[in-house]
Amino acid sequence: MAKDNFVEQIADIEEDFPRWYTDVVVKTGLVDYGPVKGTMVIRPYGYAIWENIQSELDSRFKATGHRNAYFPLLIPMSFFTKEAEHVEGFAPEVAVVTHAGGEELAEPLAIRPTSETIFGCMYSKWIQSYRDLPVLINQWANVMRWEKTTRPFLRTSEFLWQEGHTAHATEQEAEEETMKMLGVYKEFAENCLAIPVITGKKTEKEKFAGAVATYGMEAMMKDGKSLQAGTSHYLGQNFAKAFDIKFLDKDGVQKHVYTSSWGVSTRLIGALIMAHGDKRGLVIPPVVAPEQVVIVPIAVKKGGVLEKCSEVRAALEKEGVRVVLDDSDASPGWKFNEYELKGVPLRIEIGPRDIENGKAMIFRRDTLEKQEYALDGIEKQVKALLKTVQKDMLEIARVRRDGRIISADSLKGISGGVDGGNFVKAGWCGCRECEDRVKAETNATARVIADGETAEKCAVCGKKANSVVYFARAY
Amino acid sequence: MAKDNFVEQIADIEEDFPRWYTDVVVKTGLVDYGPVKGTMVIRPYGYAIWENIQSELDSRFKATGHRNAYFPLLIPMSFFTKEAEHVEGFAPEVAVVTHAGGEELAEPLAIRPTSETIFGCMYSKWIQSYRDLPVLINQWANVMRWEKTTRPFLRTSEFLWQEGHTAHATEQEAEEETMKMLGVYKEFAENCLAIPVITGKKTEKEKFAGAVATYGMEAMMKDGKSLQAGTSHYLGQNFAKAFDIKFLDKDGVQKHVYTSSWGVSTRLIGALIMAHGDKRGLVIPPVVAPEQVVIVPIAVKKGGVLEKCSEVRAALEKEGVRVVLDDSDASPGWKFNEYELKGVPLRIEIGPRDIENGKAMIFRRDTLEKQEYALDGIEKQVKALLKTVQKDMLEIARVRRDGRIISADSLKGISGGVDGGNFVKAGWCGCRECEDRVKAETNATARVIADGETAEKCAVCGKKANSVVYFARAY
Repeated sequence: MAKDNFVEQIADIEEDFPRWYTDVVVKTGLVDYGPVKGTMVIRPYGYAIWENIQSELDSRFKATGHRNAYFPLLIPMSFFTKEAEHVEGFAPEVAVVTHAGGEELAEPLAIRPTSETIFGCMYSKWIQSYRDLPVLINQWANVMRWEKTTRPFLRTSEFLWQEGHTAHATEQEAEEETMKMLGVYKEFAENCLAIPVITGKKTEKEKFAGAVATYGMEAMMKDGKSLQAGTSHYLGQNFAKAFDIKFLDKDGVQKHVYTSSWGVSTRLIGALIMAHGDKRGLVIPPVVAPEQVVIVPIAVKKGGVLEKCSEVRAALEKEGVRVVLDDSDASPGWKFNEYELKGVPLRIEIGPRDIENGKAMIFRRDTLEKQEYALDGIEKQVKALLKTVQKDMLEIARVRRDGRIISADSLKGISGGVDGGNFVKAGWCGCRECEDRVKAETNATARVIADGETAEKCAVCGKKANSVVYFARAY
Repeated sequence: MAKDNFVEQIADIEEDFPRWYTDVVVKTGLVDYGPVKGTMVIRPYGYAIWENIQSELDSRFKATGHRNAYFPLLIPMSFFTKEAEHVEGFAPEVAVVTHAGGEELAEPLAIRPTSETIFGCMYSKWIQSYRDLPVLINQWANVMRWEKTTRPFLRTSEFLWQEGHTAHATEQEAEEETMKMLGVYKEFAENCLAIPVITGKKTEKEKFAGAVATYGMEAMMKDGKSLQAGTSHYLGQNFAKAFDIKFLDKDGVQKHVYTSSWGVSTRLIGALIMAHGDKRGLVIPPVVAPEQVVIVPIAVKKGGVLEKCSEVRAALEKEGVRVVLDDSDASPGWKFNEYELKGVPLRIEIGPRDIENGKAMIFRRDTLEKQEYALDGIEKQVKALLKTVQKDMLEIARVRRDGRIISADSLKGISGGVDGGNFVKAGWCGCRECEDRVKAETNATARVIADGETAEKCAVCGKKANSVVYFARAY
């Protein structure tokens, strides 16, 4: 028996997940490698996913009272030294501009790895009174972190992201904002990317450099590894003090503000690929799919076929469905393969016999199932089906993930669990030594602290546990 | 008599146009100066204009078959040297990364001043056959050009823009694309920014470094100076040869592609400010205004006033109008002043007597005229009025500009014309010496060559003219 075409194009997902990933992202035209090591070119098919992600997130940010702005790319190196933990965390990864306009600069400039410092600098200028608060600003921007090992979307020297930076009069308000945006991310991940996420507080070791507390959302990839898909930081007064962001409060006293920051990036594209993809290639959730439906004419040259296909396309476009009609010379089989590889959620096949019977075949990329639908009013059926696919993808991912969350009460248990491709919940005493030991012996890290859960003993040292932690290997 | 408030806030536009400009952009919260010299922070009110510009342009790009992508910020310095004119034009302005990740880089990297080279590098990889053509890609990105003299929006070391880069099988197709996008820009400038523009070919001296031909659109500012608001370049095979972008044509022969590039930037925000602003501040055309309507309650604490204002706001929002209701404690007079300064196109005033009479007063920012409208169905009236304002603003700007285009047939005539704040049309022999002499003696430059117009003699040397040129002082 001949091998399926797709098996020839991409590595087997079961045998070599990392190679499957790089094969899929490159061969579907999502991304290519840039000429500078560690950089990527986000190609139109990949960028269209990002545009859909942006549009969904942006409307959520605006609905929660945030406004967009744009802050400079270049930050004086001296800004980083103002917050001790921040400089320690980011200085090693920074790309530095030393020359510009044909001259050496008096002070070297960092390409932003993140923008807390430059927002802090401007906020100290803009904020005077409690009447100026809260300040709720987001920016969509490129950032640069010089990484040793890179992989498209997951870890590249430059990536695209959004970063929200907010300032508040009280600790409580800033903490509420931090949690609110974590909630926005979680709802978005589940309803738009169809990825169930575990949210929770990060350990001291894993928190953002300069934060009082970092909250993350972790998504399980098909190989059982975790991907940090977004973070929300409560920064307390750390940056307010470093940049002297003060306001005159209602009581007539000068006080430092409390700030938060939160971000997600083009990494989310990597997340959805590894959360949903299968041996045939990508499976893109309808909400963010560049093309939600492909129409493939069967016997395209037979009278009436192309006309009917165009008619269906027009009806779908009118309903706001993103649809492509492939009327090229390639065979239907080639097209089936191609759009399955690209992860287009639905394929409609229309041939002469279908038209005679007033029917069309619809193929679901997520379940690989085919079903016949009446051509009459098919646009409504397709719209409903896209919703079903979206919902089912989340549900399937949730069931898969939940089946791979186990508990352990020993280092051996953690080790075996992550070897088997699981997230492992284990009691933790809270000390850095035990956290480091897990990493050293299992290559797993503490992803998040399980909210509200308790355990008796630390799985590592056996002492009293003060929390339960999700351990996993991570991207 | 007391001076008007607005006169105290901003410089007099008639007396000191440059200071009026910087006063207005800073005091309305459009922009602020960044900590690094020559950089700007685009604040939410300014960025919202950019978002509206982006949305209008992006839909036009997509309607003409373009797709968005994202290419890396950092470009190997060696790329610039591949196209001789290009390196000469851009090398002096480049910001250079020499260190990253704690190490000195083997090759210094330029922060993109424009992306022809890196698009060229990738296109040479992606394009193999005539079937791959045309390639029609745009990107929204930040770019960096290290400028000596900077002014917010007009000239800053970093700015935001879009850059389209296309590749075609034939010269004719690439030239058509170049002109098509110039046409898109012109239609956008007129219908969205309400700015009439003169389009035409640039002289050899003024063309883009590396182009065969550059076409520009020039807008007249209120001081009679010209602002280059967008450019579209026909690049011939210059970059195709520099980056070896070849395809196998239908006839079986390997050929170099023909390319184009075109861009507009956040400079457009500066353009609309200086094309429409007046002594009271900004006047923003409705299509790109962050807030199209402000509702100001008169006697806000009187029963029913705030309720009626909220009702009108809801009705306007339902119609898709961007509306803000200012129910703060400030006086109506203060609010009038504030929103006039910010250039909000329409103000609706609603007080107890208005409600009694079923009327509301609407103030037009562009004409400074007030008129009474029935409250019943006011949302429809407002929508129509916004369209009228948009149309009238273009018309007024066109009449103003047309009244300030004069002709001259001598260097003295050009000099007197630009001194008087005019665009001056004059015959030109086509030689660089005459062009340089105009610049040296009048500080005006050749903006564009007037399409299809002829003159007998060169206004400078008196020899036979081969074209008519628009001369003006320029930003």
